[in-house]
Amino acid sequence: MNTEVPKISDFPVGNENTGYAQYFSGKSWLAPLTGNSDLNVPISNVTFEPGCRNNWHSHTGGQILIAVGGEGYYQERGKQAICMVPGDVIEIAPNVEHWHGAAPDSWFSHLAITCNPETNENTWLDPVTGEQYAEAVKE
Amino acid sequence: MNTEVPKISDFPVGNENTGYAQYFSGKSWLAPLTGNSDLNVPISNVTFEPGCRNNWHSHTGGQILIAVGGEGYYQERGKQAICMVPGDVIEIAPNVEHWHGAAPDSWFSHLAITCNPETNENTWLDPVTGEQYAEAVKE
Repeated sequence: MNTEVPKISDFPVGNENTGYAQYFSGKSWLAPLTGNSDLNVPISNVTFEPGCRNNWHSHTGGQILIAVGGEGYYQERGKQAICMVPGDVIEIAPNVEHWHGAAPDSWFSHLAITCNPETNENTWLDPVTGEQYAEAVKE
Repeated sequence: MNTEVPKISDFPVGNENTGYAQYFSGKSWLAPLTGNSDLNVPISNVTFEPGCRNNWHSHTGGQILIAVGGEGYYQERGKQAICMVPGDVIEIAPNVEHWHGAAPDSWFSHLAITCNPETNENTWLDPVTGEQYAEAVKE
């Protein structure tokens, strides 16, 4: 139980996401929700502190995000960022460069589904700069 | 927009689930949330009216349920039923006979994920009788 994190969804928050911290700007928390690898649908709840986002990255298998708490953003390279609130579902096609994270003034939680996990590989790229983030969230 | 259904989650309710009505006792609604078949993770929101449940059934690819609104139940053949409330995740292994549905006095919505959709096949069996249902939800 992490007392730093406010309750913004019905899902567990888990532990601070130290394993991926090198690919995030800001603090995040990770709660795996599944364990049966026969199902081929690993799901975790990811919680971002306000302003936290991950680096530009891509997945060879694609990814699905399901917003469950607070407010955040998703952006594909070269496109406008999309504001995400609970109930929003984003399908990220294989190999599309993108980032996701919290709004500047809100915590954010989304379920993250690794698609095609038998073959999926993640490619982590450069951080989302302060300028890129400010531009993405300005509306 | 279905005005019969109260708002119990942030997810869309969709249309009345007439395609599967023959396998359900009671009325349900179905809202597909994804469309990219490359991702191999079809997700729908299923909403059950109070007392509604599906027949005993199984999936060769397994299934994952994510409760998002109201209160419901999940039961595997020969086991105690499990009460589900928002934030609960159930992993259903391949070929396990089970049913799911609403509590007697509550609407219920869960996201349903079809696992291994390239090969999955569903087997629909007998309805959950009134006696089986009453026994399952009695605690």
